[in-house]
Amino acid sequence: MITHISPAGSMDLLSQLEVERLKKTASSDLYQLYRNCTLAVLNSGSHTDNSKELLDKYKSFDVNVVRRERGIKLELSNPPEHAFVDGNIIKGIQEHLFSVLRDIVYVNMHLADNQRLNLTNATHITNLVFGILRNAGALTPGIEPNLVVCWGGHSINPTEYQYTREVGHELGLRELNICTGCGPGAMEGPMKGAAIGHAKQRYDEQRYLGLTEPSIIAAEPPNPIVNELVIMPDIEKRLEAFVRMAHGIIIFPGGPGTAEELLYILGIMMHPENADQPLPIVLTGPKESEEYFRSIDRFIGETLGEDAQKHYQIVIDDPVKAAQIMSQSMGDVRQYRKDTGDAYSFNWSLKIAPEFQMPFEPTHESMASLDLHLDQRPENLAAALRQAFSGIVAGNVKAEGIQEIERKGPFVIDGDAELMKKMDKLLNDFVEQHRMKLPGGSDYVPCYKIASTD
Amino acid sequence: MITHISPAGSMDLLSQLEVERLKKTASSDLYQLYRNCTLAVLNSGSHTDNSKELLDKYKSFDVNVVRRERGIKLELSNPPEHAFVDGNIIKGIQEHLFSVLRDIVYVNMHLADNQRLNLTNATHITNLVFGILRNAGALTPGIEPNLVVCWGGHSINPTEYQYTREVGHELGLRELNICTGCGPGAMEGPMKGAAIGHAKQRYDEQRYLGLTEPSIIAAEPPNPIVNELVIMPDIEKRLEAFVRMAHGIIIFPGGPGTAEELLYILGIMMHPENADQPLPIVLTGPKESEEYFRSIDRFIGETLGEDAQKHYQIVIDDPVKAAQIMSQSMGDVRQYRKDTGDAYSFNWSLKIAPEFQMPFEPTHESMASLDLHLDQRPENLAAALRQAFSGIVAGNVKAEGIQEIERKGPFVIDGDAELMKKMDKLLNDFVEQHRMKLPGGSDYVPCYKIASTD
Amino acid sequence: MITHISPAGSMDLLSQLEVERLKKTASSDLYQLYRNCTLAVLNSGSHTDNSKELLDKYKSFDVNVVRRERGIKLELSNPPEHAFVDGNIIKGIQEHLFSVLRDIVYVNMHLADNQRLNLTNATHITNLVFGILRNAGALTPGIEPNLVVCWGGHSINPTEYQYTREVGHELGLRELNICTGCGPGAMEGPMKGAAIGHAKQRYDEQRYLGLTEPSIIAAEPPNPIVNELVIMPDIEKRLEAFVRMAHGIIIFPGGPGTAEELLYILGIMMHPENADQPLPIVLTGPKESEEYFRSIDRFIGETLGEDAQKHYQIVIDDPVKAAQIMSQSMGDVRQYRKDTGDAYSFNWSLKIAPEFQMPFEPTHESMASLDLHLDQRPENLAAALRQAFSGIVAGNVKAEGIQEIERKGPFVIDGDAELMKKMDKLLNDFVEQHRMKLPGGSDYVPCYKIASTD
Amino acid sequence: MITHISPAGSMDLLSQLEVERLKKTASSDLYQLYRNCTLAVLNSGSHTDNSKELLDKYKSFDVNVVRRERGIKLELSNPPEHAFVDGNIIKGIQEHLFSVLRDIVYVNMHLADNQRLNLTNATHITNLVFGILRNAGALTPGIEPNLVVCWGGHSINPTEYQYTREVGHELGLRELNICTGCGPGAMEGPMKGAAIGHAKQRYDEQRYLGLTEPSIIAAEPPNPIVNELVIMPDIEKRLEAFVRMAHGIIIFPGGPGTAEELLYILGIMMHPENADQPLPIVLTGPKESEEYFRSIDRFIGETLGEDAQKHYQIVIDDPVKAAQIMSQSMGDVRQYRKDTGDAYSFNWSLKIAPEFQMPFEPTHESMASLDLHLDQRPENLAAALRQAFSGIVAGNVKAEGIQEIERKGPFVIDGDAELMKKMDKLLNDFVEQHRMKLPGGSDYVPCYKIASTD
Repeated sequence: MITHISPAGSMDLLSQLEVERLKKTASSDLYQLYRNCTLAVLNSGSHTDNSKELLDKYKSFDVNVVRRERGIKLELSNPPEHAFVDGNIIKGIQEHLFSVLRDIVYVNMHLADNQRLNLTNATHITNLVFGILRNAGALTPGIEPNLVVCWGGHSINPTEYQYTREVGHELGLRELNICTGCGPGAMEGPMKGAAIGHAKQRYDEQRYLGLTEPSIIAAEPPNPIVNELVIMPDIEKRLEAFVRMAHGIIIFPGGPGTAEELLYILGIMMHPENADQPLPIVLTGPKESEEYFRSIDRFIGETLGEDAQKHYQIVIDDPVKAAQIMSQSMGDVRQYRKDTGDAYSFNWSLKIAPEFQMPFEPTHESMASLDLHLDQRPENLAAALRQAFSGIVAGNVKAEGIQEIERKGPFVIDGDAELMKKMDKLLNDFVEQHRMKLPGGSDYVPCYKIASTD
Repeated sequence: MITHISPAGSMDLLSQLEVERLKKTASSDLYQLYRNCTLAVLNSGSHTDNSKELLDKYKSFDVNVVRRERGIKLELSNPPEHAFVDGNIIKGIQEHLFSVLRDIVYVNMHLADNQRLNLTNATHITNLVFGILRNAGALTPGIEPNLVVCWGGHSINPTEYQYTREVGHELGLRELNICTGCGPGAMEGPMKGAAIGHAKQRYDEQRYLGLTEPSIIAAEPPNPIVNELVIMPDIEKRLEAFVRMAHGIIIFPGGPGTAEELLYILGIMMHPENADQPLPIVLTGPKESEEYFRSIDRFIGETLGEDAQKHYQIVIDDPVKAAQIMSQSMGDVRQYRKDTGDAYSFNWSLKIAPEFQMPFEPTHESMASLDLHLDQRPENLAAALRQAFSGIVAGNVKAEGIQEIERKGPFVIDGDAELMKKMDKLLNDFVEQHRMKLPGGSDYVPCYKIASTD
Repeated sequence: MITHISPAGSMDLLSQLEVERLKKTASSDLYQLYRNCTLAVLNSGSHTDNSKELLDKYKSFDVNVVRRERGIKLELSNPPEHAFVDGNIIKGIQEHLFSVLRDIVYVNMHLADNQRLNLTNATHITNLVFGILRNAGALTPGIEPNLVVCWGGHSINPTEYQYTREVGHELGLRELNICTGCGPGAMEGPMKGAAIGHAKQRYDEQRYLGLTEPSIIAAEPPNPIVNELVIMPDIEKRLEAFVRMAHGIIIFPGGPGTAEELLYILGIMMHPENADQPLPIVLTGPKESEEYFRSIDRFIGETLGEDAQKHYQIVIDDPVKAAQIMSQSMGDVRQYRKDTGDAYSFNWSLKIAPEFQMPFEPTHESMASLDLHLDQRPENLAAALRQAFSGIVAGNVKAEGIQEIERKGPFVIDGDAELMKKMDKLLNDFVEQHRMKLPGGSDYVPCYKIASTD
Repeated sequence: MITHISPAGSMDLLSQLEVERLKKTASSDLYQLYRNCTLAVLNSGSHTDNSKELLDKYKSFDVNVVRRERGIKLELSNPPEHAFVDGNIIKGIQEHLFSVLRDIVYVNMHLADNQRLNLTNATHITNLVFGILRNAGALTPGIEPNLVVCWGGHSINPTEYQYTREVGHELGLRELNICTGCGPGAMEGPMKGAAIGHAKQRYDEQRYLGLTEPSIIAAEPPNPIVNELVIMPDIEKRLEAFVRMAHGIIIFPGGPGTAEELLYILGIMMHPENADQPLPIVLTGPKESEEYFRSIDRFIGETLGEDAQKHYQIVIDDPVKAAQIMSQSMGDVRQYRKDTGDAYSFNWSLKIAPEFQMPFEPTHESMASLDLHLDQRPENLAAALRQAFSGIVAGNVKAEGIQEIERKGPFVIDGDAELMKKMDKLLNDFVEQHRMKLPGGSDYVPCYKIASTD
């Protein structure tokens, strides 16, 4: 089956050169990347979090960019059926298709060809992150600070999911906007809740911004509610985009991905140069999830110390309070940006140390050689722990990670005995709470092994 | 506490004369009517369906219209708190406040003073209904037929409620709009579902139209999702507005109000002059509600006959199918209007017989003298049955009806023994299924008595 | 030739009753009124100012309102060709057609039927003026004071015309909006100039508001630039609409119509209750027109006195200054309305005495009996003079007035010898300066006679 | 005097790197270029066409880009006063300031750094032109063909100017959009006329697109009516942008610049690969200019031959006909693009030979060595003649050209005796008709010398 899709949203025109380079050819890595992201977007709403499975299921899928008199069109062969309603593509998904195209073209053509850009230089990386977001239209100037980044698991239970909707509803009633990593669970609930809250307030600048990246998009395809989708080139640039755009962060229950995100933001907030940065961080969940937050909090306290704990508040079973903390902090964020002349839409002055900015490629080697001991500056420990959890996410849900594990067995994580014990405890909690992968599949088989801690 | 509310939506300017006549004075009926509707709207989301209770609870509430340099303002004394978020009125409710003002002014000033208008003349009544809707901006010309009227109970169980959301979601995905009688339950679910469906389709002409009337608004206050609210002067004009605006009708499970609505539309559709009118009518609910529809269907079959049954389809547990029936019928509706030169936005050519159009005031007398026997034309029987159910709704939830019952005991309904038996059965089913009133209060005490059927 | 015109702008829906009453029938005065206004609007841009001539030229013209599925349509028979471009009606004219329909329906149906409205009562008249403007959407709440009423002749010379454009340009650059009486000359120039000024400022709330009335519309058809057209029922209500909407007034050179307008506003501003009203009035023209203003000023000084002269400034050959006076006064106007709680869009608190509000019907009798002597309160003299000039306008360009003159000879104007001499002088100046009628026709034959002044 | 200007229109956000590179430093050519274009834009409406004069007059002018919390701001030191109204910058000029910034950044940063782009390769040049226009938002997809490019002199007489307005008015009434080279005269008239025509049609997608380039912008600053301004990098890319965007071309009277444009488009249309391209070309002017067109036509006929003459029509004193030819051709243009799958907004399939695409730098050497003889393919001759006229434009009004002439005397143009005679005649006609430079200065001193033709 072949379907033609007209542009919607932001990408209507490609030059002859651009179209040519996206053509399917035997050797084209770019085409593969583009095709896989496109397939992921079409797979919106499907509930598998195994990227490989998805890609295997739609082997006959193809996408072809064609130029037409009114701009370009996409020619899809054998797309997943659930992207369509009575034969017509869902408009939100249609927009996502062109967001993918836009970001792939921008990153892989304009920037790839740029001889000045040096991606080992912090300034250049930040400028690249900025450039991608600007090109995507995600940095609307003139808008007051109101973007709340919501992190949390894609695999949460119904009570937790309902809770994320309620928090979203309260955020929406306060005319705050939502940014998440796309995907189901805690990434979807706040958006749906906010959509109803925004509707009640007739708020028409609603943003449901999804930030993703090629290695995770297949496992966590954007819900069509997402009305701005940006595909960042890798996990570190995605994280940088989150924190430079955020005016506040809410963390719901989640698994290793959520832990990675929490460690990332704590490592950054603890940097001395960020001491004055006002950025409200709230960990929140329903009564039933209280223990989860207590154990995370304990782990943070025992590993990164009390100073780290000062950067966040834990709010249990109180969506109104969680939303009010965000809402009431916006004035401080605004004032700080004004005082420092920094952009509302992009936090240039936030210092991100190189170990948080440089890509970490999880392999058996890199995972094994992580510097995991308590006897170091807490920011550095946060960075190393962040990488450990990043690796676990890759082993759980990313296509490449899964293949690595299939070939060589679980990653081995080694370090301080005491630290290892704490990590082991935390990870076991995740397993028990079914936070590692979406339920419905078989039992969770860990993709990692904590080196013996004796 | 005094709060000032600026206009939002459609009503910004009043003349000196208009403001004067809305002033609170000892003798002003108009002020009472206006105040009560205003209070009802502010009470959105509260879950009592006893109008009297609500009015008693906010005795100190007052509203005052004041003229200001930028138009008018409302001065509210002691309004219900839940209409506000952190001290600011919810925008949707704010709009509703001014919809109330708009319709009260229109009906009670412009029209009340009109010497030509003859409200016992069918043409004049229909022109009045048209006039109110046009003045409310509810008759947007140029829009293709896409308005689905959803009827059903305000007191439905969670499974049914979830089902109404799913149907709404499917309607929204097909870019159909929703019109209901406002209020909770089956009047809210389809709108919330459609809001998500519309968001996925980026559909920005979404309409969540609520039609209500002064005697019911307190019991069924509009949800803030409602983005067009019209207060019709009485129940018959509200019903006429429903059917002249509808391009299709979905009926969810409900109680006597829903039965009234079904009998109303069947009585109209069975009129010979409406034989060619294409108007899809679907009765739908989850698997658990199947028996409910079967018993309604049986009652219709046994009282109005097979011809009546031909006008609707029953769809069980299939939201997609319910939505598709609507969606696929829109072409026929469009063509018929085109062929007859009738407006898309207002079905002038639908014949409504006088017994459906003239107000029925439920009193002990009028209820007792209803012409309830099987030996008459089915349209006429439908009309009489419609009035019987209308009276029961009044006795259940309307302030005046409740007072009547308190003073004089239950309405007595009399007629054909056979017919009475069937009615008794149906009403008992409603009682058992908790469809008479919202749960949470005390046990249901019937406001009617079927005259002995032996 | 028959053409069908779809609605544009504000009037899309009519009820069955409304359509019926506009039908062409032998006896229908309403149809004649409606037809003639429609014809006038279609005649936009034609340069005759003889209403009778126009009506005679298009005797076969007819208009018929028909209801259609998307609203209503107008069926035009034999319309003037210059309303069309390559067979398609000019959109601005199309909008005007529906403005005519809207106002005719409003005034002649809704209001005519209203039993409470008492048109000899000042409050009721003002409420009617308000009602017409509100129904036309001309009273946009929330807009800051920025509407400059421009008065002046329809028959001015090219230098004066160019000057009105330049003033309009400067007003437009200052984001001020324009209201005139429609028609050519000084009523068109400021709008065209402002259109360019607004375009340079990307000002997108531009208003080119034309206020007219049935007896003048044929002689001064609205230019299609007019983007809001309101047809007031008579000349006095039109004048009241001008001054209640105005935030400032500019008077360009003109003939008796302009003199009427100046006398009207001076009579009102001199009323003691209006002593605090801030309303900038500027008389302005190019260098070549200086003498004209000096003679008007002299006439005012000699008849109404110095107090009258204080209400206006004369600005010669300085478009920037004229615009700046308006622009700089807007703050005062705004503050005054705020302080008195009066609407920005409608000056309720301006006192208009009955002699300015009651319709004056110019006949040989009423003209002969005007109370024209210097020995009375200046406001009263202003009122009488205003009526005298109003009669001359009627005799010059209005269909009915012209017929009267044709039948009975010129109006005789009598009064104080001294005053008569001054009037004679002023009117002779108008004749010499070709300000009585559009050039191109034959020589001007006066429609009045000053009673012998010896 | 220092003024801060906020963004308007399209450029709100710059990265740290981009801001840095625009900083004023002793050595920065980029800053000079940016500053001069900015100054030119601020000088809108000033009537000198001597770039050097302008630059000399505002030596103390400076511009500085600063980053702020809501985006960027421009800090202007000592800007020309006439860009402001009562101290506020004219919005149209404000937008132009940011258009300059946008294009300078795009061309000089993104593209300059691009290692793949090869500017001696035709495909790459065309892709660059496309890229600049796309980045400027000038290639709106989905719009039907409706863009009329108007060429003609900046120095035309009042009759001709009025005529260009009338043609613009007729184009505007037909909802056609206008693209010119900015500047006064024939580049401004059609836009002003169209603005009124568009207003009458309530046409709200009006485009007044100005295409300019750094060496000409100071002499022909964009009128603020221009609502899309694009600064192309050089004259050839500007010409390519004109013809790839045009759906029709109107040529008004003009001088050597207009001759250059006519020769350019004829040379292209005569290319065999463009034989099927439908592109209406109309030469039009008032009755008084008829002789001008006859002599151009004669020159074309005698040099390029009859085939060249077939590509255009001459329309004298008939604005309606000129507009109708454009309007009636749009269907063919649309169909051709549809048939060939080419974009409506950018004519990819138009073949432009290298001699028309490669920059020509007019120096005494390059001018002297032009290949000017009749014995060659007419396309080639057209190309050489185009370059000759391009050089004369430079010598007349461009800063660099004027300096060259001041230093070394007039350009010498040599070639075929017969051809030289014809050129001499044409150029003398231009001088006599005052088409070489704006009047008001001293007598025209030719910047060229035709080599002796004996």
